[in-house]
Amino acid sequence: MTNVERKAHVVWEGDLASGNGSLTGDSSKAIEEIPVTWASRVESPGGKTSPEELIAAAHATCYSQALSANLARKDVPPVRLEVEAVTTFDNEQLKITAMDLNVRGEVPGVRDEEFESAAQEAAQECPVSIALRGNVEIRVQAQLSEPG
Amino acid sequence: MTNVERKAHVVWEGDLASGNGSLTGDSSKAIEEIPVTWASRVESPGGKTSPEELIAAAHATCYSQALSANLARKDVPPVRLEVEAVTTFDNEQLKITAMDLNVRGEVPGVRDEEFESAAQEAAQECPVSIALRGNVEIRVQAQLSEPG
Repeated sequence: MTNVERKAHVVWEGDLASGNGSLTGDSSKAIEEIPVTWASRVESPGGKTSPEELIAAAHATCYSQALSANLARKDVPPVRLEVEAVTTFDNEQLKITAMDLNVRGEVPGVRDEEFESAAQEAAQECPVSIALRGNVEIRVQAQLSEPG
Repeated sequence: MTNVERKAHVVWEGDLASGNGSLTGDSSKAIEEIPVTWASRVESPGGKTSPEELIAAAHATCYSQALSANLARKDVPPVRLEVEAVTTFDNEQLKITAMDLNVRGEVPGVRDEEFESAAQEAAQECPVSIALRGNVEIRVQAQLSEPG
């Protein structure tokens, strides 16, 4: 098999400013009827999600896998990676302008420079990065943590 | 304010094939510790999410808002929109190749052609579409439903 499909759906009722939506991830069923509004997108979340939080979720998920694979190829598989993704949305231009990927890794035997280059390479390789390429600035900050 | 930030993070443990991750949406707290693995991405979901399901979730959310706004500008605000987004992931090329947006609308007073053109325009306008432009093929199928 080459093509894999993954699905989600939203039911939206009403206009943009006063309406509201409900999001379900149909493939996993792990995300079910999460509320979303315009206000949760451009003002404060108030327990509701937004396209930008979901893009951050997609990128953090994709990037952690790409970095794990990259480190294993370098013979230094990670014990633990913690990846925070932060989407910046310009709510005047209505444009997603940047994604910051902040990664902390517990990676036995890796050298600092090796971890840094793996972190930068993974940000190029990850399929979500490729999907955003040329449209969204992607920035990476990588740091090794000592085993707790 | 112009820039809005939205965050999520993943904790990943182990290598790609046998490791596993846990996703949290930090801005809303509505998405909490959802499991993710490589197998849930390229084989079957089994209750776990994937970057591709999350991109579909982001696009469905964004597109439903963009279409709601577009219809209101045409003086035919929707009563209800149901948007399904389907991501196609080529797991040999490791590339997100396409997004299908399938929309059904209950929109009093709208003409078929007017709904169709709003649906196509919204797929150009939505910020997630702009973030994916040139990298992911975006296809729209729009249909009006009669009020139940």
